[in-house]
Amino acid sequence: MGIMARRAATAVTSADVARLAGVSRATVSFVLNNTQAHRVSEATRTKVLAAADTLGYVPHAAARSLRAGRNNLVLIPAAVSAIGRLVSGWIDDLHTELERYGYTAVLHAGRFTDPGTAARAWAELRPGAVLALDGTSLGAAGAEVLRRAGVRALMAFAPQPAEGVYTVLFDDRRVGVLAAEHLVARGRRRLGVVMPRERGLSAFAEPRLAGARSVAARTTATVTPLEMEYTHASAAELASGWAEHGLDGAFAYNDEYAALLLHVLRDAGIDVPGEVAVVGCDDLVTAALQRPALTTIRLDVPSAAQVAAALHDLIETGTAAPLPAVEPVLVRRESA
Amino acid sequence: MGIMARRAATAVTSADVARLAGVSRATVSFVLNNTQAHRVSEATRTKVLAAADTLGYVPHAAARSLRAGRNNLVLIPAAVSAIGRLVSGWIDDLHTELERYGYTAVLHAGRFTDPGTAARAWAELRPGAVLALDGTSLGAAGAEVLRRAGVRALMAFAPQPAEGVYTVLFDDRRVGVLAAEHLVARGRRRLGVVMPRERGLSAFAEPRLAGARSVAARTTATVTPLEMEYTHASAAELASGWAEHGLDGAFAYNDEYAALLLHVLRDAGIDVPGEVAVVGCDDLVTAALQRPALTTIRLDVPSAAQVAAALHDLIETGTAAPLPAVEPVLVRRESA
Repeated sequence: MGIMARRAATAVTSADVARLAGVSRATVSFVLNNTQAHRVSEATRTKVLAAADTLGYVPHAAARSLRAGRNNLVLIPAAVSAIGRLVSGWIDDLHTELERYGYTAVLHAGRFTDPGTAARAWAELRPGAVLALDGTSLGAAGAEVLRRAGVRALMAFAPQPAEGVYTVLFDDRRVGVLAAEHLVARGRRRLGVVMPRERGLSAFAEPRLAGARSVAARTTATVTPLEMEYTHASAAELASGWAEHGLDGAFAYNDEYAALLLHVLRDAGIDVPGEVAVVGCDDLVTAALQRPALTTIRLDVPSAAQVAAALHDLIETGTAAPLPAVEPVLVRRESA
Repeated sequence: MGIMARRAATAVTSADVARLAGVSRATVSFVLNNTQAHRVSEATRTKVLAAADTLGYVPHAAARSLRAGRNNLVLIPAAVSAIGRLVSGWIDDLHTELERYGYTAVLHAGRFTDPGTAARAWAELRPGAVLALDGTSLGAAGAEVLRRAGVRALMAFAPQPAEGVYTVLFDDRRVGVLAAEHLVARGRRRLGVVMPRERGLSAFAEPRLAGARSVAARTTATVTPLEMEYTHASAAELASGWAEHGLDGAFAYNDEYAALLLHVLRDAGIDVPGEVAVVGCDDLVTAALQRPALTTIRLDVPSAAQVAAALHDLIETGTAAPLPAVEPVLVRRESA
């Protein structure tokens, strides 16, 4: 590793390129950033490019963005664990679509105490766009910080529009409402709602719980939050205490937590759906393959191609045609 | 969205701060970047900070890094879909550990034709560190590009060390060897190896296949690659053609693909492990809960805390104590 320490001292700057090419640092900047406002002769241009090539100098995305006011990054704030199988496939498709326009997606895993601090941290990277998936991380105040930093496109999946943020309407409360309404319609009255302990998920889980509670408030049903980690031990603990709770229905946050819950309930000798009806969310590939096959909620999200096109329009023109809201749809199978 | 277009025109620059504070742009830069080399009076400092606050000016991470030669980002090149449940939990822990040192992890989803192009794209963000998980994306040539751009810490999980890259030894071939050796020891001779079609996975799947083939080369076993998408349709197609293949053992790439394969084999009336023995990889929470319980390979990876500490040492001092190699360990259950 001694090699690395020595090499780090030889980091190449535009000053080195200027020296080798025998031009000013400003000229190097004009050439490498393709600044149209300044005329540089073809001979000088060639000299600068050759020097940059010889030294292995990489232009600086953010230095370019200081002039252009943006760069080609689409920043997606997200903890990795918050990205389930459903979202990960969609984000992959989004990368592919964004690449068509010359953008690159980066996931920013910073965890912040408030939206203002978060927005300042994202703004420091001067992305061309910020896409918030969770509905709470990008509010009007954060949007203002990002706009002042020159970020041109702000998009959020959120239950209501925020000023200056292009919003795809998506209300996680609706997911909780749909799950609870189905359980109540199936005759269940003592409902549990799984609340994952994993980082980054409460922004989705809390409104789902609130939705279930709103159903309880207008029926004779009760709602009990069930804290659970995505581990066998935590799920098994939940199942072993099931008789105490006496719950006859469960909304398991999503299909992954539902699959784990089905396993531990079976191991505990509790019949699904006989004793407990279980509803998941996401309609993953594996949902139909569970035994019993999992009743779940499918989320009809705008396609990655539609979202990429809207982001591109926002970056280029500041405006984009509205996208349809995300619609949760119940997929009824055997587990509830 | 008309609002956004108007606001974007008001992006605040350090020139605006300089104008409001009545100082030069250089002075603004000295104050906001805490440059110690230049003396600025406390009164001037206060004026600049007040002006920046009034205008909502966010200092520019990369502009700072132009001077400091690095910033606080740890860049992890990764397609989101390549991050399975195992890796996602580990990366989350890594974020938490990196935050203790003041670093933020960003996942860069760019897809590149060659390592040099990739390294240049990463270098444009001037991260403090690059951590490559896949063993092929960060070679000696890419490392040179990144070092010249001032990136101080280069770490890779790879089967052999590359010059200037701090390497945690991890050979995916070993995973394929271990799976195939176990299947052969269980009397299987016609082995299938699942090759996921999903983006970003071939860097892991190819060496696993090569490992299985090396076992076949020194036994009477044969190895057939089985292309599969992580969809019910693709898995079911594979299962429906099983009689043709006549395979009696399968290494299913990882536990997620293995779970899908177990489901479709059961639906096709093919007994596991009677007719086909199945081995997964990762020892996920759900592996022990499959029916039959999944035989798999556990990967003993250095802890996120160890890796974060090594990255910090590399960034600060250019060197770090070596970490133990990743060891694959067979976990024998019922499926093989």
